[in-house]
Amino acid sequence: MSRIPNDTPPHRAGLLDRRWFLKSGLRWSAVAAAAPALALADDALPTTRSPGQPFSNYGQPSPQENRTIRWISANRAVTGNGVSWTPLHDLEGIITPSGLHFERHHNGVPQIDASQHRLAIHGLVKQPLGFSIEHLLRYPMQSRICFVECGGNSNSSWNAEPLQTRAGYLHGLASNSEWTGVPLKLLLDEAGVDPEAEWLVLEAADAIAMNVSLPLAKARHDCLLALYQNGERLRPENGYPLRLIVPGWEGVLNVKWLSRIELAREPVMSRNETGRYTELQPNGRARQFTFVMDVKSLITSPSPGQSLPERGLYPIKGLAWSGHGRIRKVEVSADGGKTWRSAELQGPVLPTSFTRFRIPWVWDGRPAVLQSRATDETGRVQPTRAALVAERGRAGYFHYHAIVSWQVDEDGELHHVYA
Amino acid sequence: MSRIPNDTPPHRAGLLDRRWFLKSGLRWSAVAAAAPALALADDALPTTRSPGQPFSNYGQPSPQENRTIRWISANRAVTGNGVSWTPLHDLEGIITPSGLHFERHHNGVPQIDASQHRLAIHGLVKQPLGFSIEHLLRYPMQSRICFVECGGNSNSSWNAEPLQTRAGYLHGLASNSEWTGVPLKLLLDEAGVDPEAEWLVLEAADAIAMNVSLPLAKARHDCLLALYQNGERLRPENGYPLRLIVPGWEGVLNVKWLSRIELAREPVMSRNETGRYTELQPNGRARQFTFVMDVKSLITSPSPGQSLPERGLYPIKGLAWSGHGRIRKVEVSADGGKTWRSAELQGPVLPTSFTRFRIPWVWDGRPAVLQSRATDETGRVQPTRAALVAERGRAGYFHYHAIVSWQVDEDGELHHVYA
Repeated sequence: MSRIPNDTPPHRAGLLDRRWFLKSGLRWSAVAAAAPALALADDALPTTRSPGQPFSNYGQPSPQENRTIRWISANRAVTGNGVSWTPLHDLEGIITPSGLHFERHHNGVPQIDASQHRLAIHGLVKQPLGFSIEHLLRYPMQSRICFVECGGNSNSSWNAEPLQTRAGYLHGLASNSEWTGVPLKLLLDEAGVDPEAEWLVLEAADAIAMNVSLPLAKARHDCLLALYQNGERLRPENGYPLRLIVPGWEGVLNVKWLSRIELAREPVMSRNETGRYTELQPNGRARQFTFVMDVKSLITSPSPGQSLPERGLYPIKGLAWSGHGRIRKVEVSADGGKTWRSAELQGPVLPTSFTRFRIPWVWDGRPAVLQSRATDETGRVQPTRAALVAERGRAGYFHYHAIVSWQVDEDGELHHVYA
Repeated sequence: MSRIPNDTPPHRAGLLDRRWFLKSGLRWSAVAAAAPALALADDALPTTRSPGQPFSNYGQPSPQENRTIRWISANRAVTGNGVSWTPLHDLEGIITPSGLHFERHHNGVPQIDASQHRLAIHGLVKQPLGFSIEHLLRYPMQSRICFVECGGNSNSSWNAEPLQTRAGYLHGLASNSEWTGVPLKLLLDEAGVDPEAEWLVLEAADAIAMNVSLPLAKARHDCLLALYQNGERLRPENGYPLRLIVPGWEGVLNVKWLSRIELAREPVMSRNETGRYTELQPNGRARQFTFVMDVKSLITSPSPGQSLPERGLYPIKGLAWSGHGRIRKVEVSADGGKTWRSAELQGPVLPTSFTRFRIPWVWDGRPAVLQSRATDETGRVQPTRAALVAERGRAGYFHYHAIVSWQVDEDGELHHVYA
């Protein structure tokens, strides 16, 4: 049975100094749970009785982990229209395995023959150019660990009542990878951009020829024509053979299966920047071209669907990110926002990347509300839900980034609440 | 046809300043190859004619990339005895996809029931302890992006003649992941290590109960009991459900399927630290317990099995790493070591991690020998092959880390040479 030792250090609603476990002479198990019984491996272990499985050319997860999956939420009437969610509640660290990167497709995953695929750059340029993948693979590349987040991520949190599901299925239209590709600036310079051009119109080779507009300044600043994700060539559902990475900006701009870039004076005013991604505000004006993803954070564990088996010490851990740069600070509250304590940030803390935070917490067995609040290097702070709803109104749909609240009940079960 | 422009900047054997391509007003395509013909995507693209494939719970690589695999080199007489190699020549960035992480198994991949697995800590401790995986998952964790390299990696390079195969199949018993797990120090503190203990004897739950010894100081310094690799739970062939990560030290110490840690006064003198990993030197003495992996680098592209289709500009790119800390510098030579030029290091440059380097190179169509030479933050420099062989003798088998040489022939084909 667990117990809270008499020498537990000062805390705020059970939150301990983030480095307490490394400084303390206390045994974690003394507070986390009973000191476990010794169970020495003996010669009779089943796995030591006979040879194991052979080598493999390409490995797969353990069948025992087959509940760690993308949860698919798709339109039954239209093939390949919908999303699938990254199970953030099952993951650790900052890298999302490519097989669990979230998906947002409008009309399925096209099966593109990479040897036939072309990227065209045309419009307001001195010299229209076309590039094969083979050609692009000979260009200089850069790598960047960064998140891609759908502008519509977390949008169920605009609902009047908190949706009860897993953390990743509320907020997992966000994933983090090491992307490698050709700086878009290089190809724009080769084509020679006309001084009158201010926008790029991006088009995909999928079944709806998805298109959207991107300001030229961002394209020249840090966008990558990505050919690799987490070391290997892109997966089909992540844009094989070529996608754009627009660090820190809405996922829709990170066009998959990219086939065409047109330089233009004006945005194209496509569905994905007018009918979508434009929102009426309380003051009667519309938000449009709200590109940058806001500072945000989320406790991934403990979180709904998990439960605390007993009173005692638990690691609280989660993810924070901001499209504006690096995460500077993540504070955690265990009393619904009355008191806060800074969590430890796992290095390296990279710009426009998931940042893992962790802090130890003693649960005393009473109801508690867990929250995290991120601050980025520009000083932007994650708002409360009340403040966000007041600012954006009930017509809000995109860019939900308010503080997330998990309630711990007396029985150790966790629920999503608005607090 | 490619051409080398008259205004190509000063270079050393074709090696340009590492930032040249970003500074220069030149078009990369003007020197890399003919300006490509414009091929605008049109409405008749096959993939825009019909909906694509549906969503998936867990993604897989494109079938078109099915040659990017681990190459298996196993003992036909013993199930699961041998290695499989990471195809470093096909990869970019620094993260190795978990499915392509190299394997070294002695008797196959055990199928361990994670709910039944236990880690025992015993021997010279105040309180022997046993831990279930469920229990360990409640402990505080840390993440670290670092390499694991087999002490026998690259050992074909001790041969009198250079082996002709792909770069990854010569040097790919090394891979780089984000590992997350419980600091070993925490559990050792809980067990209470006897002051007389100086070694840990580690044992695996595989069919040979593989065992090896680790100095206590390293165990307390930075070792992790890893439960996660690249965000998700370990893959079976990487130690599911539990492996040790010993940053920067020989792969054999990073015990997979870890089931037992015994604290002891002396090393256990197992096969893997006596019959193996002990080497006679020219002076008649033996090297033993040579734990730290040396500073090393490798050009992954261009490399043998690839070819240069024509004269012109190419990115040279590769990987560098050191068990002693961060990589400080990687120099590249295109004339067999006569002249060198510093490559660009892709950030973040992390300790005991793969570091990606890149530099542009103009191939003039004549034979060339490409080499890379890494220096780490302790000042250690990768030696020439001649110096390493002189020091270690022809009985060398482990810890090969000399400068690697690729010859470019007049026809653009690449070969492995000793230079």
